[in-house]
Amino acid sequence: MKSDATLQTRSGCPINLTLELLGDKWSLIVLRDIIFGNRRHFRELLNHCQEKIPSNMLANRLKRLEQAGVLSRAPDPSHKQKVLYSLTEQGIELFPLLAHASSWGLKYLPVSDELGARAQVLAAGGEPLWRDFMDELRAEHLGAKRDQRQISVRERLQQAYLDAVQ
Amino acid sequence: MKSDATLQTRSGCPINLTLELLGDKWSLIVLRDIIFGNRRHFRELLNHCQEKIPSNMLANRLKRLEQAGVLSRAPDPSHKQKVLYSLTEQGIELFPLLAHASSWGLKYLPVSDELGARAQVLAAGGEPLWRDFMDELRAEHLGAKRDQRQISVRERLQQAYLDAVQ
Repeated sequence: MKSDATLQTRSGCPINLTLELLGDKWSLIVLRDIIFGNRRHFRELLNHCQEKIPSNMLANRLKRLEQAGVLSRAPDPSHKQKVLYSLTEQGIELFPLLAHASSWGLKYLPVSDELGARAQVLAAGGEPLWRDFMDELRAEHLGAKRDQRQISVRERLQQAYLDAVQ
Repeated sequence: MKSDATLQTRSGCPINLTLELLGDKWSLIVLRDIIFGNRRHFRELLNHCQEKIPSNMLANRLKRLEQAGVLSRAPDPSHKQKVLYSLTEQGIELFPLLAHASSWGLKYLPVSDELGARAQVLAAGGEPLWRDFMDELRAEHLGAKRDQRQISVRERLQQAYLDAVQ
């Protein structure tokens, strides 16, 4: 994006530019579901969104995130008719922002037990856990190699959620 | 906010709840100007906003942030007719979110040299610098005592900005 000076922006402040891209009620919800829910197809993102994102909104946000370089899209290798969405490195580097939003919300807002269970693991693990999870995302989305750990962060988050809904 | 179950929310997910409060184009701009610009009065926030926030929008966002417990308001001790806005501890703990948005924007979006200068200092200093700055904010907004350092983070950020606009 650095060289794209054709966008109309309110100012060249980095916080403002980030908000112009992501400062709405849905963009980070879509990224959350891709990152934590590992949802990579349009239908999954539409049908499993807790907040019931409207179909046209989801299509719009996926397109904007792709244009901004946060997501990439390609035919799914295992199902050619389907489009597979992947995080780019730029998208993966938004993870700390989501993790901070999660930890702050957990501490100060009326979070439900079920949907707060993963947030507790994230908050307790802090930056080292976040770095591990970002490495897992690089393996899943960019095909990067990663150290095989005994149990992945994704599995730990999923287990915390399952424990909470039981 | 923890006990306030009367709000209509889309879900109890901590990321969603944080977005429902802060996921718009202006809330974090107002917080940015309070935090980095040290603007504590309505007129300062209105007149010096780079993005030219409309007056009714500023009033609305200040009220929402106060109701959410992110800001507090009180008569200015040095000028009783004026209202002074202060960050609460809950507001100060949003700082890492802004710092990440700043660093990410600096890396990936078409940031201007002038408005990116402070972001470079923030990104280079990382978490230790952020913690120091949060301590300064606690001193400025909550009256907390702090270690007197040779030069404050606020001064360093300001100097970087002045160097860039020269």
